[in-house]
Amino acid sequence: MKKNTFSFVILVFFSGLFLFSCTTAEAPPNYNSNDSDKTKTEVPAPETVLRSFHDDALVGSPAYAQLRYLCKDIGARLSGSENAQKAVEYMQRVLDSMNLDSVYLQPVMVPHWERGEKEFCQIISNDKNKINQKVLDITALGGSVGTDGRIKSEIIAVNSLADLENLSKEEAKKYEGKIIFVTQPMEAKFINTGSAYGACSSVRVRGANYAAKVGAKAFLLRSLTLATDNHPHTGVMVYEEDGKKIPAAALSTISANYLEKLLVKAKKESKSVEMELQLNCETLPDVLSYNVVGEWRGREKPEEIITVGGHLDSWDLGEGAHDDGTGCLQSVEVLRLIQKLETKPKRTIRCVLFMNEENGARGAKEYARVAKEKGENHIAALESDSGGFTPRGFRVQDSTRLEIIQKWLPLFEPYNLHKIEYGYGGTDIRPLGESGTLLIGLEPDSQRYFDHHHAKTDIFEAVHEREFLLGAAAMASLTYMMAEYGIE
Amino acid sequence: MKKNTFSFVILVFFSGLFLFSCTTAEAPPNYNSNDSDKTKTEVPAPETVLRSFHDDALVGSPAYAQLRYLCKDIGARLSGSENAQKAVEYMQRVLDSMNLDSVYLQPVMVPHWERGEKEFCQIISNDKNKINQKVLDITALGGSVGTDGRIKSEIIAVNSLADLENLSKEEAKKYEGKIIFVTQPMEAKFINTGSAYGACSSVRVRGANYAAKVGAKAFLLRSLTLATDNHPHTGVMVYEEDGKKIPAAALSTISANYLEKLLVKAKKESKSVEMELQLNCETLPDVLSYNVVGEWRGREKPEEIITVGGHLDSWDLGEGAHDDGTGCLQSVEVLRLIQKLETKPKRTIRCVLFMNEENGARGAKEYARVAKEKGENHIAALESDSGGFTPRGFRVQDSTRLEIIQKWLPLFEPYNLHKIEYGYGGTDIRPLGESGTLLIGLEPDSQRYFDHHHAKTDIFEAVHEREFLLGAAAMASLTYMMAEYGIE
Repeated sequence: MKKNTFSFVILVFFSGLFLFSCTTAEAPPNYNSNDSDKTKTEVPAPETVLRSFHDDALVGSPAYAQLRYLCKDIGARLSGSENAQKAVEYMQRVLDSMNLDSVYLQPVMVPHWERGEKEFCQIISNDKNKINQKVLDITALGGSVGTDGRIKSEIIAVNSLADLENLSKEEAKKYEGKIIFVTQPMEAKFINTGSAYGACSSVRVRGANYAAKVGAKAFLLRSLTLATDNHPHTGVMVYEEDGKKIPAAALSTISANYLEKLLVKAKKESKSVEMELQLNCETLPDVLSYNVVGEWRGREKPEEIITVGGHLDSWDLGEGAHDDGTGCLQSVEVLRLIQKLETKPKRTIRCVLFMNEENGARGAKEYARVAKEKGENHIAALESDSGGFTPRGFRVQDSTRLEIIQKWLPLFEPYNLHKIEYGYGGTDIRPLGESGTLLIGLEPDSQRYFDHHHAKTDIFEAVHEREFLLGAAAMASLTYMMAEYGIE
Repeated sequence: MKKNTFSFVILVFFSGLFLFSCTTAEAPPNYNSNDSDKTKTEVPAPETVLRSFHDDALVGSPAYAQLRYLCKDIGARLSGSENAQKAVEYMQRVLDSMNLDSVYLQPVMVPHWERGEKEFCQIISNDKNKINQKVLDITALGGSVGTDGRIKSEIIAVNSLADLENLSKEEAKKYEGKIIFVTQPMEAKFINTGSAYGACSSVRVRGANYAAKVGAKAFLLRSLTLATDNHPHTGVMVYEEDGKKIPAAALSTISANYLEKLLVKAKKESKSVEMELQLNCETLPDVLSYNVVGEWRGREKPEEIITVGGHLDSWDLGEGAHDDGTGCLQSVEVLRLIQKLETKPKRTIRCVLFMNEENGARGAKEYARVAKEKGENHIAALESDSGGFTPRGFRVQDSTRLEIIQKWLPLFEPYNLHKIEYGYGGTDIRPLGESGTLLIGLEPDSQRYFDHHHAKTDIFEAVHEREFLLGAAAMASLTYMMAEYGIE
């Protein structure tokens, strides 16, 4: 894009000035001042407030630098780890520095799973009577047992979990003692990558149980990503209570492509392929950890609470940048932006940085349990846990109350927030939904999220400052509207 | 994001399957086949066609690999350069391989400006009686004259071009023989970065003329980007016909920040700061080049033409990936997607890869001139020249005909295309507008564009495959609708 003639340049220049003057004209003259003539309940027009949030987020926000600290100075912070504790302490310091009405830690016992040092996967095949060895990119799934040293077995590919379901004993026999590799890829045709993930995440979460039932020795899947890359993507898996626990791991998509081709070729030649596999992960005793909470109490209805949050824990690969450092710092930024208003909103806004979303959601459950125990009235909860990319709108997890939020669409559209649709709120706020809390998820652009999801590339540098801050401003906008105007 | 309980996993799994089955159910059974029973004019429902475009773009498109070749194997391709000629030949080969109705080159004489090898900028200041030297990141603006060796002069900062306007001779005197540095930054508060660019691009295009009028020796500006980075961003500048030609260059934003602070400090201490500057750029004689054209003729109204395009030239820094390799390969992909339909659209679709958008728009002017000379009926033109990021919608440069396009919004919304608003079409299609052609620009997400714009970071790796392909599918969708249903 370039303007190559004077007349056009002038056109653009003046239309730019016009746009800009509209922008500044929209800004309220005094929203950051302490004009004492104003009564406490004289609230500015919502258009003015939303513009102030976006202006203040895009210029001079500390949130990106805070995210940098969480990612680069602390780093990965799996539940139960030392880093998770450091993250709790850091975020408490950040909230403490903000002059909120209250800041506290909410204790919760969390699982403590560790990957261990050496993960190893090697293919041994016979090609033209020559032994062919190749190391593959692999990582254990969170919650998996280890292999107890290096195991070696034939590897067999199946297309999907359906191939392992309802087999007769005779049919199941061919998998006995083998390593099973489910080749199912994420479906590229979905426009929203979150839908593609939702359509196959059960392969990761439950696949090992299917494999164990047919007597397999271990379970592998193709990493859940749409990218062709050489770093495996981890994520939680859960064993059935009475089932056998076999090791479970993800191959990078490049390794999965290689292995799939090799197995097709071997099958044609009636040869078998062996795999050596070593995972040293283990589950240790539960550890005391915390949700980190900061509160800005409402001026008229402090007992009505709107929770806004993300999760503070992350997988041990990468730095937990998009998943979910961005959600945490965006939630803190919501408080900062709303604190800058001259008048407090009617209802209470509570920023909650949940612990242990990735492998247990213990923080989520504890927060809802305590809220219920205290008889708190949580009218709505907003979570950001889909990455810190340009916001597109909100997912509202209640088709009947969806229209309450949709009526504010004209306020959001100037900020390119066009989507207010039915959809999933978020894992951390989900337990609140059992008490009738309206659950809402921030919906950012989804195209890049699964490139980084649960992998070593989920680092600070993958987060774009403006995209991240626009997400925070979008969250502040909706949080404010609910806190000031309610959701009746 | 992670699903941590079985019930939820199952919910997501089945809702995913549901979504997916909707997706595939929408696809027409035979749109890629050659079912000869069908009459030529039995066109499928638009919903079916648009779904097929998105499916075919997201799975198995050659466009990203073609973009890789254009960027990595050819690279930067400024008008008049050897690489520009290689790009013409490559794109002609690509179109030739597609079995189109016609492929041709349209000759056009283009400017030939070269940067030359050594660009150099160094600050010399006096700090505590010690000479302080610092090299700054600089690059000449396209079209600038060189410095004829190394020049040395005092550097003076002004906030904007307005500070140089309407000065008395006395006031102008302080700039005589100096190097002027305009510090004006892009305004971060704009939500769309293109608007921020539009509001200050005249500083780059016209600034040197302002500086020359007050007798300055050279003109510098802060690079037009919202990023804080250490690579300068170039772009066109244009001398006034009868004005003095002084060298013009852009500092990286990090260098501009440094220099601005230094000059503020020096001013307080009543000291001056000197700059050494060397630019070796020059304008050579015009060169014969080409627009590259491929055509898919309409089945019923072949005389009604819809042009879809991008520009094949790029700046000499980077690889011209987002600006505008993506627009070129997206336009070729539009043809490929529409060719896969069983039935040709009613009207003609012409893919045009324009030469010389960046510094002259000669290709654009020649295309419109020839179209007029031949009496061609160009009903609409669609350009992609705002980056290969996730598409958000379209800018329609005609407020009265805007609603014709807006009525198709419900067809586009499933693909997250929500914005169909009044806006700029594009520099390459602009000359067609003089004959009444409806001008439309693809509107991608704008947040990252100016990080890469006209800089060495505009490389293939900055383009995300799915975002780029979704843009191509969006363009195919609108092009098809106009070609099949007209714009009456």
